[in-house]
Amino acid sequence: MFGKYLLQVRDRHPMVHSITNFVTVNDVANAQLACGAGPCMADNPLEAADMTAIAQALNMNMGNPSGHVLEAMIAAGRRANELGHPVVFDPVAVGTTPYRNFVAENILRQVQVTTIKGNASEMRALMGLGGHTGGVDALDADKPNEDNLAAFTDQLKAFARRHQCVAAVSGPIDIVTDGQRAFAIRNGHPKMEEVTGTGCMLSGLVAAFLGASPDQPLEATAAAVAALGVAGQVAWTNLQPNEGNASYRNRLIDALNLLQADELDARLQCESY
Amino acid sequence: MFGKYLLQVRDRHPMVHSITNFVTVNDVANAQLACGAGPCMADNPLEAADMTAIAQALNMNMGNPSGHVLEAMIAAGRRANELGHPVVFDPVAVGTTPYRNFVAENILRQVQVTTIKGNASEMRALMGLGGHTGGVDALDADKPNEDNLAAFTDQLKAFARRHQCVAAVSGPIDIVTDGQRAFAIRNGHPKMEEVTGTGCMLSGLVAAFLGASPDQPLEATAAAVAALGVAGQVAWTNLQPNEGNASYRNRLIDALNLLQADELDARLQCESY
Amino acid sequence: MFGKYLLQVRDRHPMVHSITNFVTVNDVANAQLACGAGPCMADNPLEAADMTAIAQALNMNMGNPSGHVLEAMIAAGRRANELGHPVVFDPVAVGTTPYRNFVAENILRQVQVTTIKGNASEMRALMGLGGHTGGVDALDADKPNEDNLAAFTDQLKAFARRHQCVAAVSGPIDIVTDGQRAFAIRNGHPKMEEVTGTGCMLSGLVAAFLGASPDQPLEATAAAVAALGVAGQVAWTNLQPNEGNASYRNRLIDALNLLQADELDARLQCESY
Repeated sequence: MFGKYLLQVRDRHPMVHSITNFVTVNDVANAQLACGAGPCMADNPLEAADMTAIAQALNMNMGNPSGHVLEAMIAAGRRANELGHPVVFDPVAVGTTPYRNFVAENILRQVQVTTIKGNASEMRALMGLGGHTGGVDALDADKPNEDNLAAFTDQLKAFARRHQCVAAVSGPIDIVTDGQRAFAIRNGHPKMEEVTGTGCMLSGLVAAFLGASPDQPLEATAAAVAALGVAGQVAWTNLQPNEGNASYRNRLIDALNLLQADELDARLQCESY
Repeated sequence: MFGKYLLQVRDRHPMVHSITNFVTVNDVANAQLACGAGPCMADNPLEAADMTAIAQALNMNMGNPSGHVLEAMIAAGRRANELGHPVVFDPVAVGTTPYRNFVAENILRQVQVTTIKGNASEMRALMGLGGHTGGVDALDADKPNEDNLAAFTDQLKAFARRHQCVAAVSGPIDIVTDGQRAFAIRNGHPKMEEVTGTGCMLSGLVAAFLGASPDQPLEATAAAVAALGVAGQVAWTNLQPNEGNASYRNRLIDALNLLQADELDARLQCESY
Repeated sequence: MFGKYLLQVRDRHPMVHSITNFVTVNDVANAQLACGAGPCMADNPLEAADMTAIAQALNMNMGNPSGHVLEAMIAAGRRANELGHPVVFDPVAVGTTPYRNFVAENILRQVQVTTIKGNASEMRALMGLGGHTGGVDALDADKPNEDNLAAFTDQLKAFARRHQCVAAVSGPIDIVTDGQRAFAIRNGHPKMEEVTGTGCMLSGLVAAFLGASPDQPLEATAAAVAALGVAGQVAWTNLQPNEGNASYRNRLIDALNLLQADELDARLQCESY
């Protein structure tokens, strides 16, 4: 179902321009390379728009919106819009500080994004439903579960329609919607929460998949979500004795690197709504 | 003896706000996650104080004090002081450049720190005893050894009393003191010196342990020192054929992730003074 | 042939000051430590020149030339020139944006570099031969191969003479020349292209080797190129089942850490011109 979107990344080698944070940037780049994309990081406003112009997708992640990063994002985002390039926005820890809210509001007002990907607390904060006072990780109470899945999906669909984009929430159950259709994906592994940057890797992968399949943003976004989730399960299986979260991080990226399209399809646990 | 402080981190999941350097920030985050803490990095002065307000501890590391990092540290440090949050300061490479001395002096003048953690050369530079002209690593001549241990401990006690904080020096022998009592800890492994950022991981862990046990700063600091030291020994034992310093780094964080409180107590080599 | 230069790094432990990018900085530091060098990263213009003064070599990498990085590079580069310290310049992605061209031109005009190391597209852009419109990775059409090797080497020799430096181009065939003599090195492994930062590691290693053997810049540069290439081959051999690009990165640095001088000489595939 989604395997063909992974194949597109491997075939087309999209170059992805990321404006992202220093905490996880190396893992984002290696996760993109693992799938066949070409990472490029450039956050100086003096070149951000020019770099975007030669890329196939733009990934904006506000994990540490310092210095002139907001300025670079706006410049690159607007250029990407002019050129019709897909744009991913990861509103890391929105809702925790006034400055992050300011950054997120500015980006969403000035740039038309293709996909917004956040964890449950971030997406609830963006949707005006509260949530997220605990830093970069989602609060358990905010996460979609079997009980609130239908309601959460409806809220996310409305949000996607309002912003005319794909909205993706990551967590034990991932939800991806374009406002009309929705996928609920139940891959992934709890150990992923003990690795910094799995959320950043995901937005980086979404940009890679969108860069390779720009005409199917819903499916490309969902395929990236599924690919990381399956890789998380494979990585857990491959973990050796005495290995903990650092080795799990490597095995997660390794699993992306070795993931085959048919394996992705075979392991996929996805429902459509 | 110190195992219970590790349990506190695992039980309370303290959120730690780090203002740190781009070289080792990813390892700091994963080391904190390995122990059960929640890392959050935000070094923009426009949000640093707000981020600190929702964390349980603040970790300030001047490994690369660029841009507005000093401004962010002062803002966050003062807010942490107002809120009574523990504050860790890692004066990386103080003594090597006038600017680093300026940064360290400003922080110590404007912020009341809970724990100062440095290597031997850094702590000697802060104590006005010379030391440290060789970059980020401690010079062998500066390190505490069996011959100078008593004298070094006395100097460190006086420094801790002067700054009304816990002072910790890392090295082959780690010393931790609050000015009255002192611990000498002989865990750790020489291979740790071939990995960048073990010192940064340590200050990040000290902040995590202080965030979980803010009322016992001496013991919490010493427990973090001991935990990393024991993990360094376990990591060496777990190293496989053909593995070098990069794999050792992963196994170090893995060992923190799998470390049990009773194992920490059983392996601890600690004397009180 | 080149093993003795590796021994020099292990014996002399040169401190290397790097002004580099946040994407790969951690790997650069661990690769330098793997060989016995002491990494130090400091990109604040307020201290860059002072830090260079206590180092044995300077490594300038424009992977993400943001903030005041250019200012720091000029200040540090000029100080290094005054002190006679070797200087490495890695013109990452020059040719892709006007700003990168501006940065590279300024550095080459204001700083006398010892070695310029780039991939084929970057070096072609610097030589005014076009090339490099695809981001941070070299285009296949730009790379030296058996057919264009002689012509490429001649062009690189002319470039080295013009800049009075050593010029090194990395790729399936690496070429290193001081304008008179040239080495073609055929070590390395294709898997290296799936790891972000192997080029950055290489310029970091060149600086380490130059810091240990400043009087033989051609041989020291070629030895660093060969060391990383051999490590890339060893890492591939050491890769275990289910391991991909993330583990390969670790095994690459591990192989540097365990590389012996005689093994480097035995595996070397190098021709002189």
